[in-house]
Amino acid sequence: MKALWLENNKIDLRDVSQPRKPSEALIRIRKAGICSTDLELVKGYYPYTGILGHEFVGEIVEANDASWIGQRVVGEINVICNQCEQCLNGRPTHCENRTVLGIVNRDGILAEFTTLPITNLHRVPASIPDEMAVFTEPLAAALEIQQQIQIKPTDRVLLIGAGRLGQLIAQTLALTGCNLRVVARHAHQKNLLKARGIRVIAEEEIKPWRWDIVVEATGSPSGFSLARQAIRPRGTLVLKSTYKGEMNVNFSSIVVDEINIIGSRCGPFEPALRLMEARQVDPSVLIADEFKLDEALKAFERAAETGVLKVLVEA
Amino acid sequence: MKALWLENNKIDLRDVSQPRKPSEALIRIRKAGICSTDLELVKGYYPYTGILGHEFVGEIVEANDASWIGQRVVGEINVICNQCEQCLNGRPTHCENRTVLGIVNRDGILAEFTTLPITNLHRVPASIPDEMAVFTEPLAAALEIQQQIQIKPTDRVLLIGAGRLGQLIAQTLALTGCNLRVVARHAHQKNLLKARGIRVIAEEEIKPWRWDIVVEATGSPSGFSLARQAIRPRGTLVLKSTYKGEMNVNFSSIVVDEINIIGSRCGPFEPALRLMEARQVDPSVLIADEFKLDEALKAFERAAETGVLKVLVEA
Repeated sequence: MKALWLENNKIDLRDVSQPRKPSEALIRIRKAGICSTDLELVKGYYPYTGILGHEFVGEIVEANDASWIGQRVVGEINVICNQCEQCLNGRPTHCENRTVLGIVNRDGILAEFTTLPITNLHRVPASIPDEMAVFTEPLAAALEIQQQIQIKPTDRVLLIGAGRLGQLIAQTLALTGCNLRVVARHAHQKNLLKARGIRVIAEEEIKPWRWDIVVEATGSPSGFSLARQAIRPRGTLVLKSTYKGEMNVNFSSIVVDEINIIGSRCGPFEPALRLMEARQVDPSVLIADEFKLDEALKAFERAAETGVLKVLVEA
Repeated sequence: MKALWLENNKIDLRDVSQPRKPSEALIRIRKAGICSTDLELVKGYYPYTGILGHEFVGEIVEANDASWIGQRVVGEINVICNQCEQCLNGRPTHCENRTVLGIVNRDGILAEFTTLPITNLHRVPASIPDEMAVFTEPLAAALEIQQQIQIKPTDRVLLIGAGRLGQLIAQTLALTGCNLRVVARHAHQKNLLKARGIRVIAEEEIKPWRWDIVVEATGSPSGFSLARQAIRPRGTLVLKSTYKGEMNVNFSSIVVDEINIIGSRCGPFEPALRLMEARQVDPSVLIADEFKLDEALKAFERAAETGVLKVLVEA
């Protein structure tokens, strides 16, 4: 089958053998999304060799349980052992022996087929089209914030970053009724937010020491620094993006101001599907472009352009 | 009156005029404690000029409300405005206009007298002797941890550091019934813990990625690094000490492991007094030495010696 292969910071389209794992379902990929993690893997921020990609919607073509065959599904990306301390304590996404689809020791989904254990899969309601369902994984990651911390309707919440993940975070945070402002860089990002009635704020208008919750979704030291200035004493700073290398941070002021910093990663799929089914969020507005799998290299070039949001690949 | 004055990283005993603030109570100091913050102020880690010291037990000699005169009291160190956003939102220790006893823009208590607003003062029950009451402020700071986060009786809790504050944290954490281990450097620190049935652990025995809660009370980058290795995914890392300058930290791993980092500073006085009244904690075991105010310089030398816990000054 055709697949987008990453090796030594280079991607190419190649023919590989169709995956076969008797204990897992075989899934034909319908649509895939390119996310910032994929672009970072290509840049070599994390070591990975294999088929790239982890955001997808597909259809089951083979499964031990025949009732799943033909089902349209999305898939959780962490494949777990069910035996380690994290799995046994209700933290499966932190499994100590996990492989991660297209990220850690497991071929990804920018291909004609992939395999995943049935326990990783979620049926997609018929009313959710492929171009929405393909966003389930990043939308679930956005919802991980509400899974970790309480957001009160009266909270002042500042979201820094309105890119691929930032837009989804903005849409889900807005559902809490909180007093939300978003720092966005590009006109297109701002327009998408405004179209949903979500308010943007210019950096120079951000009052320091005033925000109950700040969500940092840029992954840049300047974003972290802005977040640190904005947060109020005893406020919560959610880190929703990874950072290249180490960061120099003044921890004394974090102690004095009793700031709470919390890292946030993969989230729950079912709530993401529910919100899309009810059209309470609409990730498909992020779509900038769509390519065939044959043109996956072009798709990556397009996704890497400044300000471009979601690029899809149709398998 | 006699007072220990700090100026340009030098302390000296000098005669200063007795404080007088009509809106505040005049307090005769009975006993004072020297803490690590005092030693750091002398080293110049934070800029401060004036009378040093903030841990004390005293007796009110003048007050607008006569019912307070003659009362033995301890005092909260943050003097607040009652008008700023933090004060009006139940965060008085984070008052934006605060002065802090012996630390920020307010003369401290290593003197014959001090003044504080009545609202900062707490009566000391008769059954608590001065040599315990003088620990109320640091004991309250230890209890701030339980004020900020839930500690379950089944939690595995690692405390790194068994110095002045660490010993008090160990005593209060032990009251939760949690599965506590303490990293202590000096034999004397270990013996104090063991005498209370609190278990110590050698660094090399600490299993990484296994502790639900880690309290870092050393204020050193090596302590932070050990804490980071020990904490489990989604665990809570409490920073209970300030850090010199900035620290280089890998925030990507904090995001991937969804770690919660929380700074912790001043705590509640009344629970500290209750625990001492019931003898559920006994801070007085920390006392290494006691000096007269005339010998305050000697007291500071003694307090700066390696492994020495609490040095008291009698006014």
